[in-house]
Amino acid sequence: MNHLTNLLHGHFQENREKILEQFLQFLRFASISCDPSRAEEIEGCKEWVATFLRSIEGMSVSQWQTDEHPVIFAKDCSAGPSKPTVLIYNHYDVQPVDPIEQWDTDPFSPIVEGDFVYARGAQDNKGQCLYVLQAVKALKEILGDIPVNIKLLIEGNEETGSGGLAALLEEKKQELQADYIFVIDLSMKEADTPSITLGLRGNVALELSCQSSQVDLHSGSHGGVVYNPIHAIVEILASLRNAEGSINVPGFYEEIEPICEKMLHSICFDFDPKRYQNEFGALATGGETRYSPLERNWLRPTVEINGIYGGFSGEGVKTVIPAKAIAKITCRLVPGQEPQTIAKKLCAYMEKKAPLGVEVKTHIYPGGGEAVVTSPQSQAVQAVAGAFTEVFKKPPLYILAGGSIPIVSALQKISNAEIVLFGVGLASDAIHAPNEHFSFTRFFQGYLVVGNALDIIGQKKSPVESK
Amino acid sequence: MNHLTNLLHGHFQENREKILEQFLQFLRFASISCDPSRAEEIEGCKEWVATFLRSIEGMSVSQWQTDEHPVIFAKDCSAGPSKPTVLIYNHYDVQPVDPIEQWDTDPFSPIVEGDFVYARGAQDNKGQCLYVLQAVKALKEILGDIPVNIKLLIEGNEETGSGGLAALLEEKKQELQADYIFVIDLSMKEADTPSITLGLRGNVALELSCQSSQVDLHSGSHGGVVYNPIHAIVEILASLRNAEGSINVPGFYEEIEPICEKMLHSICFDFDPKRYQNEFGALATGGETRYSPLERNWLRPTVEINGIYGGFSGEGVKTVIPAKAIAKITCRLVPGQEPQTIAKKLCAYMEKKAPLGVEVKTHIYPGGGEAVVTSPQSQAVQAVAGAFTEVFKKPPLYILAGGSIPIVSALQKISNAEIVLFGVGLASDAIHAPNEHFSFTRFFQGYLVVGNALDIIGQKKSPVESK
Repeated sequence: MNHLTNLLHGHFQENREKILEQFLQFLRFASISCDPSRAEEIEGCKEWVATFLRSIEGMSVSQWQTDEHPVIFAKDCSAGPSKPTVLIYNHYDVQPVDPIEQWDTDPFSPIVEGDFVYARGAQDNKGQCLYVLQAVKALKEILGDIPVNIKLLIEGNEETGSGGLAALLEEKKQELQADYIFVIDLSMKEADTPSITLGLRGNVALELSCQSSQVDLHSGSHGGVVYNPIHAIVEILASLRNAEGSINVPGFYEEIEPICEKMLHSICFDFDPKRYQNEFGALATGGETRYSPLERNWLRPTVEINGIYGGFSGEGVKTVIPAKAIAKITCRLVPGQEPQTIAKKLCAYMEKKAPLGVEVKTHIYPGGGEAVVTSPQSQAVQAVAGAFTEVFKKPPLYILAGGSIPIVSALQKISNAEIVLFGVGLASDAIHAPNEHFSFTRFFQGYLVVGNALDIIGQKKSPVESK
Repeated sequence: MNHLTNLLHGHFQENREKILEQFLQFLRFASISCDPSRAEEIEGCKEWVATFLRSIEGMSVSQWQTDEHPVIFAKDCSAGPSKPTVLIYNHYDVQPVDPIEQWDTDPFSPIVEGDFVYARGAQDNKGQCLYVLQAVKALKEILGDIPVNIKLLIEGNEETGSGGLAALLEEKKQELQADYIFVIDLSMKEADTPSITLGLRGNVALELSCQSSQVDLHSGSHGGVVYNPIHAIVEILASLRNAEGSINVPGFYEEIEPICEKMLHSICFDFDPKRYQNEFGALATGGETRYSPLERNWLRPTVEINGIYGGFSGEGVKTVIPAKAIAKITCRLVPGQEPQTIAKKLCAYMEKKAPLGVEVKTHIYPGGGEAVVTSPQSQAVQAVAGAFTEVFKKPPLYILAGGSIPIVSALQKISNAEIVLFGVGLASDAIHAPNEHFSFTRFFQGYLVVGNALDIIGQKKSPVESK
């Protein structure tokens, strides 16, 4: 254990109760960004984060208004121009909680059970955001100075596609300049196997609606006469994929760029189907049949139906032909695929499938983001790899992620920085699902990794200075 | 206008306010038979009907307990064995109200607007049930005696398949003996075009569920790995029909019996697509392409998806792969098709389509019913035709109905009666849909038709006596 790790360790132990209490406070805000009725909770949550940041001496805290929820931007650049600048990205918004009936406890009344904290956002991303803030605060309190120029970017619309922040990037270009960006919203391979994520899929969201009549109709009086919009929607959606699980939409795979062979060789594609089954009660049998599970999840784009609804969903039977049926769809994208272009191809394909008598409408959500790939040889990745090695006593594996953080690609372009994607989440944390949870041990490990990584980078000269 | 019509007319005018008030009372009970939370409303509604019946002098009123909701059985056989016995079938239960947000007013706070009464059940079947009761009561009060032996069978589970009553038929066989059965739950061709329905489709209900995991999964982390159950359900459901709208399930059409050519020639198959579009905002483009709209609705069986749900249905975007997706399905059946046999064929087909990694389960609801066909030459049909001619000053058209009254086929068999299916509903009454309504003018016409039909039959000898 190096000297800094020792100091960070001691500081955490001294403040352990307070840190846990702060974690629970942060989790109590129902900061669901996609739900307009939660505006007050979002506001409260944002204020809580801003207040925490103001408690770090020397930190200047701004709030950037957007068309969506505000972005918090804090910085302490007292390290000076000879030191590198690190921008850390997190978000304070969370996913919706449905199906609420599958939660064992209230998603916004966090529960501590042994090492685990259960709540919406416990891992994604409030847990990971707060250990970053605690690490920065600890460095300041232990060392007197943070070893780098630090910028903290904490947004409130990650879960809805980061539209607000995306629209601000040009205007805030100067503020966002950095040498390195840490995106701390990722997971590790296993609890005892640290890893750094070298790439993310992009994504884009859309909606499909099929409508056949102005009002719901009786399925006796109208069955066989009208084109049931549920029949139309299942027919259109089923036509999206062929028997091998590939997407039938013309041009869907057209612009994909091959990934560097060398980078691919550094990636661990190991997948244990038994373990997957135990963990999720699921078989890894989806997607394109000619690829392995992690190839499908990391290297191949998908079209996923995230929700479908229309007609009767209550107890028993209702003999209705609904006026309308709706599906919510997202695509995961790989390098080369531009989100809006892909969404338009998909919508054009679905609209063309409209049977006579069914009005097929599509809506593409703004936002979305391109896929991201980083090099394992970059200084940013190497610094974080050093920090993981210090904390876990073994070097991290390199993996990719099937998920997306839509803003990352645009943020990388605007800030001219080397990016590194990491975190101490696990696939089993149930993010975006009922009973999301996070381990306080991993919270602590994340805190140590961030502290060490900033320290390692602080030992470098500013890339600008060294040029 | 004959003498009886005159008397019935006068009686109605005298009691008009009271009858309307009773109608509104009847509609205020939220007697949704499929919803277990409405048990008290069902009970209250049933008691209201029983109380009304007890107010008719000479009427003996029983309640038959079932595994579901009670059946009301009332009779007055004082006409004696030389007179025919007429059993009239109605129901006091109603359909659910969703989508509740599409109702302009509360479904159980009836509103009178001009000639129309808006409420769930206004037509189906409380409106049609109550004009029967008012007609029977009026005959008693005007004539001193009802001209036939009358039996009234008013059940509480028509909308859920009549399982309770079906289970009682054997035991109550004696009570249910009749010469004629009036099933008064049907519609006319148009408001000024009376009609008698010579046949009904049968039906059966089932449910399909597809499950891939124990919990909802993140569509980034698991997209392309797990088999999304919404993909599975849309693929299975889309495979039910071919490009011509026919059902792909092996044996689905196998047992269909041809309908008598002579009967078919008496049926009016006229269909005005423009009018249909104006009335329902829909094109008649569903079902099997090689049949005309009314052939598809009356003579051909269908598989209709009445509801589908799984995953996210809120505002915005949620990147989830749900654990489960569910579809609610009903089939409409034609003569020869046995409900449970058809349902089993459908379930076997869907289960066989299960992709690896997706648990496909089916559930067949008990109940359902076979299709019914009657002859336009029967005495029952001729008596009601005479009554319609008296009231509307023109003879009724003969039509069929695409809907089902599941108990009718079994009731006909057990009671050895000639059956006649009629009513004064209209396709535009929005039954089973938001803003259901009924016209008080048609309520009055229905009352006159029932009164006259009973009078015409009362002039016949009992078929048993005359043999």
